[in-house]
Amino acid sequence: MRMSKKKKHPHSYYLYRMNTTNTICRLYEIQHPIIQGGMAWCSGWRLASAVSNLGGLGLIGAGSMHPDTLREHIQKCRNATDRPFGVNVPLMYPRVEEIMHIIRDEKVRIVFTSAGNPRLWTDWLHRHNILVTHVVSSSRFSVKCQEAGVDAVVAEGFEAGGHNGREETSTLCLIPQVREACSLPLIAAGGISSKNSYHAALALGAEGVQIGTRFALCRESSAHPDFKTYCRSLQEGMTKLMLKKISPTRLALNDFATRLAQAEDNGVGIDELRDLLGKGRAKKGIFEGDLKEGALEIGQSAGSISKEESVQDIFEDLLSDKP
Amino acid sequence: MRMSKKKKHPHSYYLYRMNTTNTICRLYEIQHPIIQGGMAWCSGWRLASAVSNLGGLGLIGAGSMHPDTLREHIQKCRNATDRPFGVNVPLMYPRVEEIMHIIRDEKVRIVFTSAGNPRLWTDWLHRHNILVTHVVSSSRFSVKCQEAGVDAVVAEGFEAGGHNGREETSTLCLIPQVREACSLPLIAAGGISSKNSYHAALALGAEGVQIGTRFALCRESSAHPDFKTYCRSLQEGMTKLMLKKISPTRLALNDFATRLAQAEDNGVGIDELRDLLGKGRAKKGIFEGDLKEGALEIGQSAGSISKEESVQDIFEDLLSDKP
Repeated sequence: MRMSKKKKHPHSYYLYRMNTTNTICRLYEIQHPIIQGGMAWCSGWRLASAVSNLGGLGLIGAGSMHPDTLREHIQKCRNATDRPFGVNVPLMYPRVEEIMHIIRDEKVRIVFTSAGNPRLWTDWLHRHNILVTHVVSSSRFSVKCQEAGVDAVVAEGFEAGGHNGREETSTLCLIPQVREACSLPLIAAGGISSKNSYHAALALGAEGVQIGTRFALCRESSAHPDFKTYCRSLQEGMTKLMLKKISPTRLALNDFATRLAQAEDNGVGIDELRDLLGKGRAKKGIFEGDLKEGALEIGQSAGSISKEESVQDIFEDLLSDKP
Repeated sequence: MRMSKKKKHPHSYYLYRMNTTNTICRLYEIQHPIIQGGMAWCSGWRLASAVSNLGGLGLIGAGSMHPDTLREHIQKCRNATDRPFGVNVPLMYPRVEEIMHIIRDEKVRIVFTSAGNPRLWTDWLHRHNILVTHVVSSSRFSVKCQEAGVDAVVAEGFEAGGHNGREETSTLCLIPQVREACSLPLIAAGGISSKNSYHAALALGAEGVQIGTRFALCRESSAHPDFKTYCRSLQEGMTKLMLKKISPTRLALNDFATRLAQAEDNGVGIDELRDLLGKGRAKKGIFEGDLKEGALEIGQSAGSISKEESVQDIFEDLLSDKP
């Protein structure tokens, strides 16, 4: 479902503003190739609509939402912006079918899928006139995306917060390899938080960027204020890729993560790790602000973020002419 | 010993060619801000002089050399190029004092120090009119470098081959933070292997790049041909940061590294790891070409290198106008 097929695009009223020289902007009909990651517990309608209103692409993170909550966020987002926005759906989500039906019924036109096989939902989404972008962490999977017919790919490196690839390929190494392996419109993610890293990603061959951490910590994010304050205080080197035996996840160091790191250093097995992790730790940390016992999913670039800021502040910085 | 002090520079006959708009080029009096990493077992006079002859800065890697061997390489390098070149000295090297005296006696004017405290040798080197560049993996250490009075800093990210930082900060996240923390001329390293990543590093705020892996695998490198062939065949994700309990080191996966990874997964302690590592594994792998039992130190960007090429091919690629 590439634009060349000349299907009527649901956001065509917005065409007059879109940047037609950039593949990513043309695809989503947006002004700047800046996508806000659809992060669990952070990315509700408030964040997504603020990003879309400034000419980027806001994403609602379905991964942490009950289906009814998602429907509410989509409706509120539509009330808050007349510009394109999308929904991020982790495919390992247990109620993914319900989620997808809500997305279709609510006429969302942009879906980002992650953590699963791009073949699973791409055709179904395309039949309902929905653009599909899939998140990968290796060039091998970007080729699978192309074979599955997705419209664009997010290549996310080792620096990213939360769930992460097994191969630990950094964004700097990943983007040129994905660019070489597949011809899909390419969005770089992982470690991108500033004008400099945005421009570096473009130099690497990406056509756009997905920014998670910086948006997770801004005013419009639905994360708990204590989580934001703590993450903004993190120094360089204070996040760590952990849980590699289950599913690699980047966490900020706190009591829980330090205990986990020690257990991992001692070589504990998968079952023991699962016990240690328990259930609902991400919600506890990110949404409820339990800084000791929560799993504080955040990217490596947290080390360079210290100010409290709004989405508008972030866009002004990313798009500034200052050297 | 910054150039502003107007000391007579030993390479001033070369001034006519240097790029005067770039801080790194002005500092070393070179044409392109491209430094070839001074890598153990790879960086002899042949590689260093080839890089210097093309307008970059070649470095001889003293880390793997007997002092007499180093003297021979310096003399041969001087015979092979009339342009500036330097020596990389890991400060944990047991015979570092002998090495430094040879560097002084042979009138080498550029030294890169790594793996140690920048205070140790900077003043002594400056007294002998030698420029000092120190390698760091965190912005905290870049500040220590500035305090120690070094002339420039190499900030090397998680992607780099061989010895690596403990904090696992990627080059993309590291460079802007070092740029923010210190005002020294800044060279980016780790994961830089192509024109794209070279330009990305400049976008991040570096003034130059140090390239290791790509030069380690080229024709002029003194590494064993089998090591080069094997590393050029590596797919994405086939290097791994290991030995974190001793000194984090990025290795290509082979029989030895797989055994090591299993031991680490099982949580073995430092003593057992040291036994497993033994002595001389890097020489065995890189210089003697023992692909099974050697420690194959190489960077993450090996995944994107597949062609056999010369230093000239690399420079043509890095400096090409092609998009």
